Amino acid sequence: MRATVIHASRDVRVEEVPDPVIRQPTDAVVRVVLSCVCGTDLWAYRGVADFEPGQRTGHEFVGIVEDVGTDVGGCVVGDLVVVPFVWSDGECGYCAEGLTTSCERGGFWGTQGSDGGQGEAVRVPYADGTLVRLPNEAASDRRLLTALLTLSDVLGTGHHGAVGAGAGPGTTVAVVGDGAVGLCGVLAAKRLGAERIIALGRHPSRTDVARSFGATDVVPERGEAAIEAVRELTRGRGVPAVIEAVGTAQSLWTAVQIVRDGGSIGCVGVPHGSDTGLDLSDVFERNVALRGGVAPVRTYIPQLLPDVLDGVIDPSPVFDLTVGLEGVPGGYKAMDERTALKVLVSY
Amino acid sequence: MRATVIHASRDVRVEEVPDPVIRQPTDAVVRVVLSCVCGTDLWAYRGVADFEPGQRTGHEFVGIVEDVGTDVGGCVVGDLVVVPFVWSDGECGYCAEGLTTSCERGGFWGTQGSDGGQGEAVRVPYADGTLVRLPNEAASDRRLLTALLTLSDVLGTGHHGAVGAGAGPGTTVAVVGDGAVGLCGVLAAKRLGAERIIALGRHPSRTDVARSFGATDVVPERGEAAIEAVRELTRGRGVPAVIEAVGTAQSLWTAVQIVRDGGSIGCVGVPHGSDTGLDLSDVFERNVALRGGVAPVRTYIPQLLPDVLDGVIDPSPVFDLTVGLEGVPGGYKAMDERTALKVLVSY
Repeated sequence: MRATVIHASRDVRVEEVPDPVIRQPTDAVVRVVLSCVCGTDLWAYRGVADFEPGQRTGHEFVGIVEDVGTDVGGCVVGDLVVVPFVWSDGECGYCAEGLTTSCERGGFWGTQGSDGGQGEAVRVPYADGTLVRLPNEAASDRRLLTALLTLSDVLGTGHHGAVGAGAGPGTTVAVVGDGAVGLCGVLAAKRLGAERIIALGRHPSRTDVARSFGATDVVPERGEAAIEAVRELTRGRGVPAVIEAVGTAQSLWTAVQIVRDGGSIGCVGVPHGSDTGLDLSDVFERNVALRGGVAPVRTYIPQLLPDVLDGVIDPSPVFDLTVGLEGVPGGYKAMDERTALKVLVSY
Repeated sequence: MRATVIHASRDVRVEEVPDPVIRQPTDAVVRVVLSCVCGTDLWAYRGVADFEPGQRTGHEFVGIVEDVGTDVGGCVVGDLVVVPFVWSDGECGYCAEGLTTSCERGGFWGTQGSDGGQGEAVRVPYADGTLVRLPNEAASDRRLLTALLTLSDVLGTGHHGAVGAGAGPGTTVAVVGDGAVGLCGVLAAKRLGAERIIALGRHPSRTDVARSFGATDVVPERGEAAIEAVRELTRGRGVPAVIEAVGTAQSLWTAVQIVRDGGSIGCVGVPHGSDTGLDLSDVFERNVALRGGVAPVRTYIPQLLPDVLDGVIDPSPVFDLTVGLEGVPGGYKAMDERTALKVLVSY
C-alpha cells in the first residue's frame, strides 16, 4: 500500500510499504477514508521533535473496518469507525478511569512497528478498546465525515483544554492560540456554556473561524500588548479559565499573565523546549492551577459524538485545504509555511 | 513595645519599637498572647528571600483585642482572636470568592509600615475582614490555644495542600516534607477522609508526629530511593494525591515522580529559586495537575475551627520548643539548625 514516511527534517514522502495484516487476535485493519495533518506533525517535520527516520506519520483518521482478529467483538468488517490518536486496551485501570492516554498497553501511531494515519490502511491494536463506531451513512456525507474526523484529536483536545480550564455555564474563557486545537477549544468552551470567549490569535482567517465557533472577543496582539488587551476586556482582573493551545514558552507565559488569581489554565499545547517560560512563583502566589495534558480523546468521543452528528457543533471549518494522499508532503509544506491552517487528506 | 526586627541575614533582634495605634477606622490593635516562628521566616533569615533591613517579623499569632477603630463591628475590646498570615478586607471580589490571599487591599505582616506577629502587639488593618473570634475561655487552656494558633497559617496551609491534591474519603495521599506544614497536611488529609497517607520525611521525631497525625506509611529515603519506595507501596503506579510542602526543586521533582498519572499535586511549599526542577513535559504527558499556592487561611478558619475546638484534630504537637519574646532570635537559630521543628513564642 501507499503510506507517508518521514525520512528527515522536511523530507516526508509517500511510498510503498507492506500492507497491514492482523497480527494479534485483538487487532483490526482499517482502510482509511479521511485523514489529516496535525500541528504536532510539524514538530518532527521541522526537526524540533525526535523521530526515527523511516517511521510512518499521521495519527488522525476515520475509515472502514476491513479485517478483524478473532477476539474483536466491538466492530465488524464494513463498519465506519473513528480512531483516536492513541490506541488503548479499554481494560486497564487507567482506561477504566478514562485516562486512556496512560493505558498500560497503549501507544502512538507511527511508532516502531505501527502504521500511521497518513496511509491507505492501518493495523489497529486493541480494536475493541480503541475504535469507536460511527453511523455508516455518515460515510456519504463529506461535511459530516470531515467533522467526525476531528474526534480523533483536535476536537477532543480542545475539549480537554476547556475542561481543564474550568469552562462551564456562564464562565469567561480565554484561548491562547488560533491553530486547530485553539479553535476547537473555542467550540468546546461554547458547547460547555461559556458566556464570553476571548480568542487570542493574529491570523484573521483563523480568528474569523473562532468567531463563528463562538468567540465573543478577538485579541490579535501578542506579548505585553495582548496581556494589556485582555486585562482591558476584563476590568484589569484577567480570565478565570484559560486554554493554552500552543505549547511554547511565549504562549504559556501569556496564559499565566492573563489568568485571574485563583483561575485555571487548561494546557493542551504540547510543551516544546526545556525553557517552559513558567515562573512557578507567579503561579503559586496567585493560586493558579495548571491542568490538562495529552487529551484522552477516546473517553471524550462518546460525549462529543452526538453533538457532532446532530450538527450542534461543526468543527469541520478547521480544515482549509484538501489534498490526496500523494499530496501529503505538499500539505506539510503548506502548514509549515502557514498558508494552510489544517490539511485534510482525502482518499 | 518590644518586637522582633530583622536587620540582616542571621541578625534578628528583639528591640523597642513604637506602640501600635489605631490609624484607620477599620483597624484594631491586638495584644499578642501566642505567636511562633515559621519555616518561611527562615528564608529571610538565611538571606534567600528578600527583606528590608529593619522590618518586623512574624505572621502567626493569637491575641486579645485591645483597641478598635470606629468602623470595626466584628469584635470588641477583650475578645480573643486568631489572625491569618495575610490581612484582607473581607469585601472585595476575591474575598467574596474565598481567595483572601489575593485581596485587593490585603497585605503581609512585617511589610513596610506594618507590625509583625513576633512582638507584643500588632495594628491589624481591616479587622472585620481579617480577625476571627475565638471562645474567650480558650485563653486559659494552653494546649488548646497552641492548637488554635496553627489556624493562622500551618493548619490552613496543610489543608490547602490536601484540598489541592484532591484528598477525600478513601483516597491515598502522599506528603512531601516533614516540616510543620507537611505534618498539618497529613492531619488535614486524615480529616478529609484519606484512607492511606504516605509521609516522606527523614527526621524520626517528625515522622513520629506524622504517624500520630494519621500517616499510615513513612518513607525516610530521599531522591530516587524515595520514589522507588513510594512506587513499591503503590504497586508501581504512584499516588493520585500529593501534597508538596517544601518548595525546593528537589521536593517538587519528588512530587512529580511519585504522583500517579492523572493525579494532582497540591503545592503549598513556597517556591524558592528560579530552577523549579519542573519538567513540564513530564507533567503534561501524564495529565498531572498542579494546584494550590498561598493558602487563603482566612477562608478555612471557620471550616477548621470547630474540629480544633472539639479536639477532633490537635495540631499542637507541631511545636516542640517554647521561648519567650526575648528568646525569638534563639528560636530562629534552633529552627535554622534543625534542632527545633517549630518554635512557639509565649508571652
